Amino acid sequence: MAHDAEVVVVGAGLSGLAAARELVARGHDVRVLEARERVGGRTLSQPFGKDVIDLGGQWVGPDQRRTLRLIEALGLETFPQRHEGKKVLMLGGERRVYRGTIPRVDLASLLVMQGTLTRLERLRQEVSLDAPWESARAEGWDAETLASWMGRNVPARGARALLEIATRAIFACEPSELSFLHFLFYLNSGGGLMRLAEVEGGAQERRIAGGAQQLAKGMAAALGERVVLGAPVSSIRQDAAGVRVESGARRWRARRVIVALPPALAGRIAYAPALPAARDQLTQRVPMGAAIKCVAAYDRPFWRERGFSGEAVSDAGPVRLVFDDTSHDGRQAALVGFFLGHSALRYSGQPAERRRVFLERLAAMFGPEARRPALYVDQDWPAERHSRGCYVGVFGPGTWTGHGAALRKPVGAVHWAGTETAREWCGYFEGALEAGERAASEVARALGE
Amino acid sequence: MAHDAEVVVVGAGLSGLAAARELVARGHDVRVLEARERVGGRTLSQPFGKDVIDLGGQWVGPDQRRTLRLIEALGLETFPQRHEGKKVLMLGGERRVYRGTIPRVDLASLLVMQGTLTRLERLRQEVSLDAPWESARAEGWDAETLASWMGRNVPARGARALLEIATRAIFACEPSELSFLHFLFYLNSGGGLMRLAEVEGGAQERRIAGGAQQLAKGMAAALGERVVLGAPVSSIRQDAAGVRVESGARRWRARRVIVALPPALAGRIAYAPALPAARDQLTQRVPMGAAIKCVAAYDRPFWRERGFSGEAVSDAGPVRLVFDDTSHDGRQAALVGFFLGHSALRYSGQPAERRRVFLERLAAMFGPEARRPALYVDQDWPAERHSRGCYVGVFGPGTWTGHGAALRKPVGAVHWAGTETAREWCGYFEGALEAGERAASEVARALGE
Repeated sequence: MAHDAEVVVVGAGLSGLAAARELVARGHDVRVLEARERVGGRTLSQPFGKDVIDLGGQWVGPDQRRTLRLIEALGLETFPQRHEGKKVLMLGGERRVYRGTIPRVDLASLLVMQGTLTRLERLRQEVSLDAPWESARAEGWDAETLASWMGRNVPARGARALLEIATRAIFACEPSELSFLHFLFYLNSGGGLMRLAEVEGGAQERRIAGGAQQLAKGMAAALGERVVLGAPVSSIRQDAAGVRVESGARRWRARRVIVALPPALAGRIAYAPALPAARDQLTQRVPMGAAIKCVAAYDRPFWRERGFSGEAVSDAGPVRLVFDDTSHDGRQAALVGFFLGHSALRYSGQPAERRRVFLERLAAMFGPEARRPALYVDQDWPAERHSRGCYVGVFGPGTWTGHGAALRKPVGAVHWAGTETAREWCGYFEGALEAGERAASEVARALGE
Repeated sequence: MAHDAEVVVVGAGLSGLAAARELVARGHDVRVLEARERVGGRTLSQPFGKDVIDLGGQWVGPDQRRTLRLIEALGLETFPQRHEGKKVLMLGGERRVYRGTIPRVDLASLLVMQGTLTRLERLRQEVSLDAPWESARAEGWDAETLASWMGRNVPARGARALLEIATRAIFACEPSELSFLHFLFYLNSGGGLMRLAEVEGGAQERRIAGGAQQLAKGMAAALGERVVLGAPVSSIRQDAAGVRVESGARRWRARRVIVALPPALAGRIAYAPALPAARDQLTQRVPMGAAIKCVAAYDRPFWRERGFSGEAVSDAGPVRLVFDDTSHDGRQAALVGFFLGHSALRYSGQPAERRRVFLERLAAMFGPEARRPALYVDQDWPAERHSRGCYVGVFGPGTWTGHGAALRKPVGAVHWAGTETAREWCGYFEGALEAGERAASEVARALGE
């Protein structure tokens, strides 16, 4: 069965849909092929008691303009992530309660932390968003992990612990897995560590009433039958006549293709001719982070009653990060938490065990009521066949400097989107939209607009 | 078209063939499916003037017992890698000539080098070959790259340069890409850095007359029609009835499957049910190194006439490593050299340019005669569709400690071979054979032997 389209987009996550929307607006004939039976990629919203909750990406920051415009255009509403009240820090097996942004640790750690944040703020601005590998100090920064950089440059155990917590929360991977150059690039892409880490004024400032998957659903609805579900792409063949995209026995012919998948998944498609070495090896070198997201709903927000915001972070125990996840109308009280990095892999494929551990950790953080939720659900992203991890691809040492130039460079008629290819807000909804629009512009130019 | 076999082996490199040979010897019904139209994987020998030369793996060390037994069983002969004479070191743009194992550098560097080798010899013995992640200091060693470890622990620029040269030569990747734990594991797996680096008594001691691909061809000949060429496996499906392996429209049913591919390629097969997260994420985290191998033949071994062994190493310029590659009978004088790591990617897909640069570098090392070879051939492994890099998969920081346990652990009826899964001589022919035999034993046990 053969179909024709001017442009085929692979992947109906935010990036692929944004690319398709842009091309359609410019008058092009587009098909979007999606492996799953749903759109939205790493966003996924589902009914949960009296609410719809997000099992995937859920937060929007104040300067994520494309995302906010899309929210407005779709007639959606945002509401603030609740953060008022005391926060919990589990550090070295000990429970501490604090207010504000930086948790209570020893004075030396606070001073070192302040110095480190100032220094990181300076360093990240040296990293080019267009070509991180061209930054003056790129080689050295890409030759080590964030963990080894911290070992040398953050001379206080408490400060290191806080940075490790922030890293796991932001990247869903271990500090040992991250190139220090990638860490700085990502910070710069999002406007700084504190903006990535914070609720108020930061990347976790607001949620979308009714769930973030509505962003994808809204774009997909406008694209109508151009979006084909249940069509995992197995091969992309280019020749003088154009491109042939195959999904099982189905086949689409197109002039251009946009692959809107993370590099690790893009690398699993069979290409003919084979991808150039630089591009193929890049896809081997950007593994996905790992996060399992768990939500527990309660009859009432018992933590608020005791003055807690519901926010907690931990440097030990497998539950690394918790937020209040109560519905926008307040009718459904809930907490959301994450297993991140190596902890996520440890509990992947073990639903009963992770539920038990999750509730146990919540109880340690907020009190014994946490053990008896009215509802519970979780999402094991690393085990998801069409995601194989989240939130985002992770650049290890040597990857940007050796393979970065292949990240956005088209291969013949095949273009690359996905939030991993974004300049601004790489890894976020905003980056997904930017990357999709950038790929659409490339394609529009190539089609001779 | 459906076929049946007790065991299907995916990949007819040394590891897959060794697994099949072992299972057949135990009386099992086996099929080996190979993507290419040839056997041998990362070995490849071809006629070249008056000789057959190796475009892939070519060296055998004295204590690689399985390999030596196989050579003997197949009636093949080895001959020594020539290393007599002066060697060339290109360091910081300068050409130095030396004899022996360690090049002439400043005294401080020599002393540091000696101290570092002694220290590495001690450290590598702390790494378990069965479970590197269980070594006492695994976490710290896996949290940094070899590059950052050297930055802190090798306080002499010349010594660092020599270690970087050795790393690129041994791993075909950059020191920035390697987990220090993996570096130590690999050293231990092969019996120490000097054994991996050296010719006499080391991993490069002998060559196989007529080419190393004969190892695979010999095993494949004995397996006969059990080996199916041109059958790239696209999916592996398991259910209660067994396993179904698909290659295009062809299908094999089996009780057990051995995937004898490097992790990066094993990860590109579609599995149903999907692989567990720990295993899938491992396949995302072991990218292939990168090497382009170039051979130039000459009417006579002009370098020998001037007292050179033909051995050269370089810390700059894209040609990192050169050896004498003259035929066993001496009739065909040749030099073999490598573009490694980032240099290999730079010159991948650029055949004219890399030929020019290769010959230019040889001339700088050994004299102007090098510019006019009688014959020239090269092999761009990272561009090879069914290899996508070489010599071997590279473990970056965080991979062994986070994902190591999934390396050899079967997933249902699917077992894992390939030299990357070896305990001894991981990355070498010997490791490929060990891994194949280990996977065959697992399968034999599972089949109730």
